[in-house]
Amino acid sequence: MRIGVFDSGVGGLSVVKSLLQHQLFEEIVYFGDTARVPYGVKDKNTIIRYALEAVEFFKNFDIDLLITACNTVSAYALDEMREYSNFDVVGVVKPGIIATENVLRSLESEILIIGTQATIASQAYEQPLRAYGFTNITSKATGLFVPMVEEGLYDGPVLQAAMKHYFRDIKIPDAIILGCTHFPLISDAIKHYFNHHSTMIHSGEAIVEYLEQHYALQHKFDATESKFFASENPEGLKNVAKKWLAL
Amino acid sequence: MRIGVFDSGVGGLSVVKSLLQHQLFEEIVYFGDTARVPYGVKDKNTIIRYALEAVEFFKNFDIDLLITACNTVSAYALDEMREYSNFDVVGVVKPGIIATENVLRSLESEILIIGTQATIASQAYEQPLRAYGFTNITSKATGLFVPMVEEGLYDGPVLQAAMKHYFRDIKIPDAIILGCTHFPLISDAIKHYFNHHSTMIHSGEAIVEYLEQHYALQHKFDATESKFFASENPEGLKNVAKKWLAL
Repeated sequence: MRIGVFDSGVGGLSVVKSLLQHQLFEEIVYFGDTARVPYGVKDKNTIIRYALEAVEFFKNFDIDLLITACNTVSAYALDEMREYSNFDVVGVVKPGIIATENVLRSLESEILIIGTQATIASQAYEQPLRAYGFTNITSKATGLFVPMVEEGLYDGPVLQAAMKHYFRDIKIPDAIILGCTHFPLISDAIKHYFNHHSTMIHSGEAIVEYLEQHYALQHKFDATESKFFASENPEGLKNVAKKWLAL
Repeated sequence: MRIGVFDSGVGGLSVVKSLLQHQLFEEIVYFGDTARVPYGVKDKNTIIRYALEAVEFFKNFDIDLLITACNTVSAYALDEMREYSNFDVVGVVKPGIIATENVLRSLESEILIIGTQATIASQAYEQPLRAYGFTNITSKATGLFVPMVEEGLYDGPVLQAAMKHYFRDIKIPDAIILGCTHFPLISDAIKHYFNHHSTMIHSGEAIVEYLEQHYALQHKFDATESKFFASENPEGLKNVAKKWLAL
């Protein structure tokens, strides 16, 4: 099976990492829209327009499935992407919601959702979880975490100050949805901030579980061929890929 | 005189503010490329491509002069913009350099240049200042300041932590070049961090001084007509304009 992975930038490589670890596919074509990153501060129509341009890009490849690694795109543009595709399109939001439901024992559990401004404003995680019956949900746009990860500040005083700023009024959560592909890189710091109490919901792990349940993916591949494309600076993307994916 | 002001987003309004205060023009057409902001992490070719698209936009208006408020564009794309324009194009870097030279008494003065990753990498400020004879120049990419300003964190523990992170090894400067349109909003906090010793070089003030010297702008206008355009979310731009410019 040949799949595409679409992200607004390099962050989606954290999802690719999970896909590679589970050896699910024989070929992965990655496209990061690095020339227009970040999407998380842009408005709905712009996000949809950019997502449809990515769909056109992937039509050049004979893919069976397109994974949208970006939470913001998953929150806003999936329906439109499906409408204009000749392949399946799966986002990370639904798998994240299912993983959260599977992990929590009580509908009174405290859930914290963090993501970009656009993802949080969409309520893409919050609404279905409320509909499922969860009552203690806090959604928080933590936009500064994205550039901090991009500057390599995975912990330390700057991240600590930002966590204090964002989390000052928040009860210790039972589950934290890392609603942005950048956040797995600061997962340990966030976990530590909340005294290691919370279960972290990671888009990459959640989507692997989802794909294993919804697609016939019995076969494990010894090697996955990976191709990386970027709308600017493909070398930069390849360097991050080498570092994150140990290629 | 009718001018255009181009910026990657809303930040250029800090330059418009200076232009309005000095009543230099009868009409200002502002375009912010909010759909693709920020430019400061993008590469040279992308920045030039976006800048030339802005030039095409301004050709729809009968402007005499285009001011590039964005430091990153001023650092990379001015030559190309001039080549494809039928109007004058002025950036903020050269005026900032002249203002710095005018303010400092000694070539041994300590200069700190802060800006986006792309602006600092261009050495657009540093090279001419070294050629002029200044020897103690520190350039520092302070990318996190941009989203902090956008989240309204003009001071407080998060900005303090970021300043400590960026400035930990830096001697108290005699002049600080605020090499990004967002930075005037945290000018006071930076000044305070360095014990109020440093003279702050502000793009808006610097370009007003430059224009007054290089163009025949004797006439002061009681009212300046302003038009605001954005590549997405023009309402957001207008709201910031109302707040910053008290329109």
